[in-house]
Amino acid sequence: MHFAYTPTTQDNIRHLTAFMEEHVYPLEAEYRAFTQANPWQVFPPMEGLKERAKAAGLWNLFLPEEYGELSPGLTNLEYAPLAEIMGRVLWASEIFNCNAPDTGNMEVLAKYGTSDQQRDWLLPLLDGQIRSAFLMTEPAVASSDATNITTRIERDGDDYVINGHKWWSTGAMHPDCKLYIVMGKTDPEAQRHVQQSMILVPADTPGVDIVRPLQAFGTVDSPHGHAEIKLTDVRVPAGNLLLGEGRGFEIAQGRLGPGRIHHCMRLIGTAQRSLELLCKRVGERTAFGRELSKFSSIRQEVARCRCEIEQARLLTLSAADRIDRQGIKAAKDLVAMIKIVCPTMACTVIDRAIQAHGGLGVSSDLPLAEYYVYARSIRLADGPDEVHMYQLGRNTISAYGSLREPAETSPLSPGEGPGERQKGNE
Amino acid sequence: MHFAYTPTTQDNIRHLTAFMEEHVYPLEAEYRAFTQANPWQVFPPMEGLKERAKAAGLWNLFLPEEYGELSPGLTNLEYAPLAEIMGRVLWASEIFNCNAPDTGNMEVLAKYGTSDQQRDWLLPLLDGQIRSAFLMTEPAVASSDATNITTRIERDGDDYVINGHKWWSTGAMHPDCKLYIVMGKTDPEAQRHVQQSMILVPADTPGVDIVRPLQAFGTVDSPHGHAEIKLTDVRVPAGNLLLGEGRGFEIAQGRLGPGRIHHCMRLIGTAQRSLELLCKRVGERTAFGRELSKFSSIRQEVARCRCEIEQARLLTLSAADRIDRQGIKAAKDLVAMIKIVCPTMACTVIDRAIQAHGGLGVSSDLPLAEYYVYARSIRLADGPDEVHMYQLGRNTISAYGSLREPAETSPLSPGEGPGERQKGNE
Amino acid sequence: MHFAYTPTTQDNIRHLTAFMEEHVYPLEAEYRAFTQANPWQVFPPMEGLKERAKAAGLWNLFLPEEYGELSPGLTNLEYAPLAEIMGRVLWASEIFNCNAPDTGNMEVLAKYGTSDQQRDWLLPLLDGQIRSAFLMTEPAVASSDATNITTRIERDGDDYVINGHKWWSTGAMHPDCKLYIVMGKTDPEAQRHVQQSMILVPADTPGVDIVRPLQAFGTVDSPHGHAEIKLTDVRVPAGNLLLGEGRGFEIAQGRLGPGRIHHCMRLIGTAQRSLELLCKRVGERTAFGRELSKFSSIRQEVARCRCEIEQARLLTLSAADRIDRQGIKAAKDLVAMIKIVCPTMACTVIDRAIQAHGGLGVSSDLPLAEYYVYARSIRLADGPDEVHMYQLGRNTISAYGSLREPAETSPLSPGEGPGERQKGNE
Amino acid sequence: MHFAYTPTTQDNIRHLTAFMEEHVYPLEAEYRAFTQANPWQVFPPMEGLKERAKAAGLWNLFLPEEYGELSPGLTNLEYAPLAEIMGRVLWASEIFNCNAPDTGNMEVLAKYGTSDQQRDWLLPLLDGQIRSAFLMTEPAVASSDATNITTRIERDGDDYVINGHKWWSTGAMHPDCKLYIVMGKTDPEAQRHVQQSMILVPADTPGVDIVRPLQAFGTVDSPHGHAEIKLTDVRVPAGNLLLGEGRGFEIAQGRLGPGRIHHCMRLIGTAQRSLELLCKRVGERTAFGRELSKFSSIRQEVARCRCEIEQARLLTLSAADRIDRQGIKAAKDLVAMIKIVCPTMACTVIDRAIQAHGGLGVSSDLPLAEYYVYARSIRLADGPDEVHMYQLGRNTISAYGSLREPAETSPLSPGEGPGERQKGNE
Repeated sequence: MHFAYTPTTQDNIRHLTAFMEEHVYPLEAEYRAFTQANPWQVFPPMEGLKERAKAAGLWNLFLPEEYGELSPGLTNLEYAPLAEIMGRVLWASEIFNCNAPDTGNMEVLAKYGTSDQQRDWLLPLLDGQIRSAFLMTEPAVASSDATNITTRIERDGDDYVINGHKWWSTGAMHPDCKLYIVMGKTDPEAQRHVQQSMILVPADTPGVDIVRPLQAFGTVDSPHGHAEIKLTDVRVPAGNLLLGEGRGFEIAQGRLGPGRIHHCMRLIGTAQRSLELLCKRVGERTAFGRELSKFSSIRQEVARCRCEIEQARLLTLSAADRIDRQGIKAAKDLVAMIKIVCPTMACTVIDRAIQAHGGLGVSSDLPLAEYYVYARSIRLADGPDEVHMYQLGRNTISAYGSLREPAETSPLSPGEGPGERQKGNE
Repeated sequence: MHFAYTPTTQDNIRHLTAFMEEHVYPLEAEYRAFTQANPWQVFPPMEGLKERAKAAGLWNLFLPEEYGELSPGLTNLEYAPLAEIMGRVLWASEIFNCNAPDTGNMEVLAKYGTSDQQRDWLLPLLDGQIRSAFLMTEPAVASSDATNITTRIERDGDDYVINGHKWWSTGAMHPDCKLYIVMGKTDPEAQRHVQQSMILVPADTPGVDIVRPLQAFGTVDSPHGHAEIKLTDVRVPAGNLLLGEGRGFEIAQGRLGPGRIHHCMRLIGTAQRSLELLCKRVGERTAFGRELSKFSSIRQEVARCRCEIEQARLLTLSAADRIDRQGIKAAKDLVAMIKIVCPTMACTVIDRAIQAHGGLGVSSDLPLAEYYVYARSIRLADGPDEVHMYQLGRNTISAYGSLREPAETSPLSPGEGPGERQKGNE
Repeated sequence: MHFAYTPTTQDNIRHLTAFMEEHVYPLEAEYRAFTQANPWQVFPPMEGLKERAKAAGLWNLFLPEEYGELSPGLTNLEYAPLAEIMGRVLWASEIFNCNAPDTGNMEVLAKYGTSDQQRDWLLPLLDGQIRSAFLMTEPAVASSDATNITTRIERDGDDYVINGHKWWSTGAMHPDCKLYIVMGKTDPEAQRHVQQSMILVPADTPGVDIVRPLQAFGTVDSPHGHAEIKLTDVRVPAGNLLLGEGRGFEIAQGRLGPGRIHHCMRLIGTAQRSLELLCKRVGERTAFGRELSKFSSIRQEVARCRCEIEQARLLTLSAADRIDRQGIKAAKDLVAMIKIVCPTMACTVIDRAIQAHGGLGVSSDLPLAEYYVYARSIRLADGPDEVHMYQLGRNTISAYGSLREPAETSPLSPGEGPGERQKGNE
Repeated sequence: MHFAYTPTTQDNIRHLTAFMEEHVYPLEAEYRAFTQANPWQVFPPMEGLKERAKAAGLWNLFLPEEYGELSPGLTNLEYAPLAEIMGRVLWASEIFNCNAPDTGNMEVLAKYGTSDQQRDWLLPLLDGQIRSAFLMTEPAVASSDATNITTRIERDGDDYVINGHKWWSTGAMHPDCKLYIVMGKTDPEAQRHVQQSMILVPADTPGVDIVRPLQAFGTVDSPHGHAEIKLTDVRVPAGNLLLGEGRGFEIAQGRLGPGRIHHCMRLIGTAQRSLELLCKRVGERTAFGRELSKFSSIRQEVARCRCEIEQARLLTLSAADRIDRQGIKAAKDLVAMIKIVCPTMACTVIDRAIQAHGGLGVSSDLPLAEYYVYARSIRLADGPDEVHMYQLGRNTISAYGSLREPAETSPLSPGEGPGERQKGNE
């Protein structure tokens, strides 16, 4: 057990931070102004930034080392602190080709795609030429319970025909979005977890109807957006199916582990920067004759922020380490824990920073309000908090409730949590 | 960075757990019954347990490795998970000679004691022959601000004469308590942090008056107790002074780092066991036609407990690691953080476990109510939460508030927190 | 709608307050010392205080006006602020014959007792000659769900024979406790809510075995205590049954409304006094060069306490008013609300006051720690929070969920809450 | 003391509710679509709705009865439940000419305006012909501390010349906004609370520069908006000054009492409707095989919402009653309490409703996200929470800290709070 970043990671942190300071932070105001004035257009400097990032070797950093030469070779634990730094500017991850949902989609294609699928979609994605979306959530049902999904994927000769109604399809509004990965049911009568399949749908397939961009707290999140999409008799070749019929649930599970590490580290980045903004602000303002930084209530809030951020960071790093060392299945409780902890932690920290800034805090002159909307939305995305608590609670009760107390001292300790025993040490 | 315990630590955990299961848990009910019926008497099996612990090599585990042959050689990080296990039974630490305040007193004597002081007091303490107390808190002032302390230590010829009024002197009621380390002022006119000194006072010195055992929530915590003590013209030889006049504050600071690790890990032990009891209970009871374990609200509480415990554990382990690698000064913010986080976390977790047990939860048939009283008291001991938040808030604002934003990405990350830069890697 | 106490109530408040100041507060320290030194003995001045209270017309104030000449004629709304004042000293209610569980027992006897039952038990209780207990909770089951109760009351000729195991029978340890009202099942096969009956059991009946006094957080709460009691073939005449077989649940429901008003107002009294102690304390202590009262964090805590207390007080008074005007059934949601709100509110406020007092706060030199134990225990007594939230949540969902939104503007407004329509004004 | 609405108020509630159901709720979707597509334009049906409201006698209901024939004659307590109902649709208050900041501005003009000022501005405002704004907050300072205000109002011959920089001037973007009431300093050297004055500035005065509409969480709140405004050598006749030089602070204080009642009741309306939406939703969705309404965690959230809403409602009604009976000064602590309690309560309740709706909750298909932005912003408007807690804490400590404990039983009870004694009953 050791709690310091390795020298290599420290180098990577410095390198990425220098890039952010030189190329990204200085463009923040311009980005805000541009996207507000020009919805659904790509920020003009973006392509240049991507080229710079590639040149600097800061490209596709998220892609797990197991994908050999496609991957720059970072472990989840090594990538995590870099995701934190990217998260400090909400639109920065794309510069490094590290933004959701493309990252998850690329992982899926790298892991489960046929060579044709990889040639057609993975390579352009890895190169940043195109973008993609993931069509999972449905307006009509509680789709975090995958058995509720109503979208149908039906075999018809050499094709599959898809009918369904999706929304909150992040990234689908982007002008470069060319590919959807769609979750639907191939066999609604099958066993609970083998009803679902995933299939590749080119964005320009007939029958795809983008109903509208959705707003989160009034914000459309241009240029990526969150789309409501109707799929009516959308026909694609049978070869577009991923992995096989009935394996959609299995793919979804494998996809979510690292993706949650990324989301959580980005959220930690927003929280960390919010704390820094808060600290700056309270040194600049005076009320009732004293600098805000000297009020004990302000200091308590700062102290709480710091404790909460550091705890969430350690938890997320430990989940990344678990995935690296023991695999996603062994890490499932830890991954649930970070999904429960980090979005709410970020909401709390950001909210305190907003409050200390007064009207400036909710305005678009600072990133705080956007951060809040992002963090609040993540409490719902990829399964709401309640789903994760329900399952983590069940796993935990099952692990301890059946133990002869106190036969086990502390199975929750790093290294051997309940539910993680099925897989031995490597 | 690596989040699994080393094989050696895993062995130690197994060894200590086996001892607890064989020798300690089976005696819990007997201990409760005995101490209630026989206040201020030592639990008869205690001496035998101590001999067994010595024989098993589970003795003085807390003593940092830097004390050479006195120490069994564990780092703070290696000792921490053992303190967690001991914490599961509130009276167990003494079996391993690892209980507060003796541990802190032994550290002080090992670090600052003269050879005479060590011979007279450290050796019998290390051997478990005697016990000791630490007389710091005063009823008349906010003594967590050391400049408020009113106890006087005045030189008079070859002696020091001590006058003061102390309370919450933990352990001073124990029949084997032979030594007090007393904090007082030798020079109230000196600079803020060099007014204080510490001095050794044998318990049987004339002028020592144990006024009464104090109650915390109605419990006297026999046989150690928390004493109110008046010191009236208590005269001890000048050689009893520790380290030198004006160095009391310095000693106090050095004493508190590892001590807080211990307290926090023990609290994590109480929280962990409370969670396990909670999980067991909800599998055994039924209300409104369903097993409690199936209620989503119960599962949420279990999930929250698990998230909170694991985060506090990682934070505390990281603080231990920081002390080991960079020293107490470099770890001061992390040590403040665990002192802020762990007692409140434990109170929350224990409280949820109490609630799930109904009347049984507050009774003395389970350790939960005692746990709560202990955890709640630690929110006040060694400085109330507010003092730590005040200082951590100040340090954090100072570190970030003066930074050109965003010149620093994340100085709070493990490895380089604010306030910890004055000291390089070792 | 009007939010000021009537002149009559203001007079009563002044009268009771004057009594407390003259006769009760001055004895607090003596009471604490006596009960600690003399467990299970009655505080010697108690009988004199009761005589004084009778003479002052401050006797049986709780007894609802509908009991005619037995009652001093106060409505629940008029009695509530007096219960708050009595609650400021935990042992004070008995002085005015207004303490639980005697109050509930007297109400039950007044409402449902036969003239024989009233002569034998109600009159001596109303006169303060004897005390009583209510035997409901059982160690083996979740007895807040009355269908879980296992105690049997079986008819045998002219008698009933009772077998069961009860605990947390408050008041049963008091030397003057002569009567138990026992809840048990006469017909376990009947419909869910008519299985239970209540029966009068004289404390000296053969087969009654007081196993032990229970401790709440280590405190026995002498001289009333909380008893664990075994009932083995306890035989009483059939005439001891209250109201009739199968009506135990009905009696329990009627009993609980006013009783919860009393508990909640007493808790508000403890919270209010805790806030006053907190305000006093922070004006007396200095840390880091400033009076505690000037720290913004302290002021925030004081402000929060005041907001929380006042809200809970208004809610409880509104519940009392609803009972008075529309009956217990119409007030059931409001009564659930105060049971959910007040104990937790009191715990929070008392806890803040403890924290501001440091070690003094948890000690027995102030009433704060006792207050906390009382308030914490009430979160479990008469049904844990969770039971009330479960039912209130169900009622609320049922009321709104089936409404054509927004057909009703605000059915929760005072005057017409959901679930309260079945009963018109009386 | 009496907790039911009077028959007259119940009639008014029914009348207004019927109007909302017939004319307002059916237009909600159309309003959302129109304002998104047509920023800074007035919703076409608005003028017709206003005529209907006038015809229905639902006009200027907020104006306190003391303004004689200008007022429809409702007390604050009578108006409060109507404000709650209007608050259920964020844009509804304007229909009844009851929206901020016009209400506060009209009160100021009615109370302090000269007959010329009333003729020119009050009458058109009361008639709904024009709208107005209140220019108080400044970007450069913590303007909730009025002594920090930097805007200058300088006498120059028969005119005043105004220079300053304001923002968050709600309503100033509205095409019909014709009048600003500007807070600035006439004498920065005067005593703390007589430096400020208020002055009437017609919106078309040269030197007025509307810099931009501000966004709160990305929303511009069209058509009223929140403007950033620069005032450069803005010259108005001396007769535009309100009440007299140095009386700005005094006017501000008088303005804020009823205004806070309105804001808080509207927030309670948003919370109440959020709870109703939540209850509906959980009856319509199923996850893991059960209807959401049957999950105990959902029921707990519903129960908590109901408790929190009802407490906040009673507190706000009691503050309105206090203003009516004893005046604003006597009600100042209660007014601080509702400002502390209600916005946070609303945020909490709305947030729970959002969570239960999943993606729909943050979208613009429901009013929840808008509600949240409104409630969150009110935590900052009219002084952030912290300012109110600071002052309420000080008042409370001062009231209790100096009392001989326990000389006063419960001065916080309705009828006689601390700080409210200086003023007798009226």
